[in-house]
Amino acid sequence: MRAPTLSGIHKAAAKIAKILPETPLLPLEIHGVTIWCKAEVLQPVGAFKIRGAWHRLSDLSPEEAAKGVVGVSSGNHAQGVAWAAQKLGIPAIIVMPNDAPKVKLEATAAMGAKIVTYDRPGGEDRDEAAAKVLAQTGGTLVHAFADAWVIEGQGTAGLALTTQMEQWAGGAPTRIVTPCGGGGLAAGLALACPDAQIVPVEPEGWDDVGRSLATGTIQKVGPDAPPTLCDALQTPATREINFAILKERCQPGLWVTPAEVAEAQRLAFRQLRLVVEPGGATALAAVMTGKAPVDGRTAVMLSGGNTDDAAFAQVLMG
Amino acid sequence: MRAPTLSGIHKAAAKIAKILPETPLLPLEIHGVTIWCKAEVLQPVGAFKIRGAWHRLSDLSPEEAAKGVVGVSSGNHAQGVAWAAQKLGIPAIIVMPNDAPKVKLEATAAMGAKIVTYDRPGGEDRDEAAAKVLAQTGGTLVHAFADAWVIEGQGTAGLALTTQMEQWAGGAPTRIVTPCGGGGLAAGLALACPDAQIVPVEPEGWDDVGRSLATGTIQKVGPDAPPTLCDALQTPATREINFAILKERCQPGLWVTPAEVAEAQRLAFRQLRLVVEPGGATALAAVMTGKAPVDGRTAVMLSGGNTDDAAFAQVLMG
Repeated sequence: MRAPTLSGIHKAAAKIAKILPETPLLPLEIHGVTIWCKAEVLQPVGAFKIRGAWHRLSDLSPEEAAKGVVGVSSGNHAQGVAWAAQKLGIPAIIVMPNDAPKVKLEATAAMGAKIVTYDRPGGEDRDEAAAKVLAQTGGTLVHAFADAWVIEGQGTAGLALTTQMEQWAGGAPTRIVTPCGGGGLAAGLALACPDAQIVPVEPEGWDDVGRSLATGTIQKVGPDAPPTLCDALQTPATREINFAILKERCQPGLWVTPAEVAEAQRLAFRQLRLVVEPGGATALAAVMTGKAPVDGRTAVMLSGGNTDDAAFAQVLMG
Repeated sequence: MRAPTLSGIHKAAAKIAKILPETPLLPLEIHGVTIWCKAEVLQPVGAFKIRGAWHRLSDLSPEEAAKGVVGVSSGNHAQGVAWAAQKLGIPAIIVMPNDAPKVKLEATAAMGAKIVTYDRPGGEDRDEAAAKVLAQTGGTLVHAFADAWVIEGQGTAGLALTTQMEQWAGGAPTRIVTPCGGGGLAAGLALACPDAQIVPVEPEGWDDVGRSLATGTIQKVGPDAPPTLCDALQTPATREINFAILKERCQPGLWVTPAEVAEAQRLAFRQLRLVVEPGGATALAAVMTGKAPVDGRTAVMLSGGNTDDAAFAQVLMG
């Protein structure tokens, strides 16, 4: 498997600029300091995942494209792959957990992807479920994070926010605080922004990347991990292709509680008028609580905004 | 009073481009057609009003600035004026109805403006309340819509969306559907986009502009008007400076029901991950219901997103 590169990120950015308007970078005052929020929730599928999916699928050969792609995802990567597949006319099968948010399952199906579910609460392995599908179709696996194209695609958000911060914040980001599941976005940002500190933020009980960074070897989330509303970050472990970058470049990992995440969702609602899903709000939560330090050139990724009506209403009701 | 001009809009745009990042134009599929939503809810104060306020306040002479400004507003214009006043170091007094949404009152005060309330439910006249304040301070009235600078400033949204649609939609807008209160935004868009149809959309029972367009003379909303959640559009009547433009350029006015507005708010939440207040969602509601026609070059203004947590939760719960 090839390693992701900065030149690959530039290639991805050139392709993405033709098909996706850049998402805005919104200033937000926290503790008297202005931070810069990258509103990836405004992507057509409501998450940054569209970047990596577009880069990967648009680079398939005609032969590969004809056999289709297989994605594995709780929903945001699923929608990114489905969106890119629909635009490019590539058949897509998405392996999704049966407890994924309804809004994500429906949106993925609406874009024409075939959905195969696996029993996440029952402990069924998602990689085995995907392997079964791949054996049948001979298609290309588009991994949600352990893929050079996917990492490069996600890294384009880092190039964009650098340009935006140079215009509006007086210079490139010195620190990027980002939600972290498998580490695809964090690795992409690290490659794209070599001079910025990268701070990955996970949900309480799902801090495998944080523990991996602390110990220097990849750690897993055990089967006894608590339930989390951050379905987008519910990844049992990172992979070597990501960790090789993360361990060189990341600050110590942070984690935030469900209450802190909800508070961040309310702040984004009130101050930015953005809908941010729990997993998309962990970085903002880390900044609000002071767990992640801020200065005038801190960027915060708001990575996804796909959440059910009732779940968001609950957050608003406190 | 001078009339607003297209060259004034260009002057305003040059000033605004220096201080405010452009808001995104988001594609949204409705009835199988892609429409283009101008996300003015993403302005720092959550509404387009910041445009006109900045243009007006930044053009005051030092003598005028020293005496301060007086704004009259249920909340979005209030925040626009307060934001611009704070940036420019100009004292601001805002005359607000005592039933304005709490979130708008608090945000205006937080930006350092002095708030004077008047009894809107009790029928107190807002212009009289403002006149009293102006007599005391000798300041400059910044009217929420009947002001050449304010109309020009709001018109900058039309220049921006034209540029954005030329890049992403294949050409300038042929139709702009917009929420309408006093007609400041509608008049600005009409001046900025001379080749586009302008479709103003009001809330049920507050369709004074629609009736004015139908009769050719300015009509008022009577004291028996029903309550509306669209506080931002709760304007008793337009003024001559606006109507002179509107009557030449607007399509027949439309109005939408509270249920239609709520449905539009839910669509923006689900598909665009944007928080849109009731008054900011009337244009989208008109498009969703088919009251306003759509084609491939229809723009829809999402004009404001300041709404209380509990009110929005209610909308989400249906």
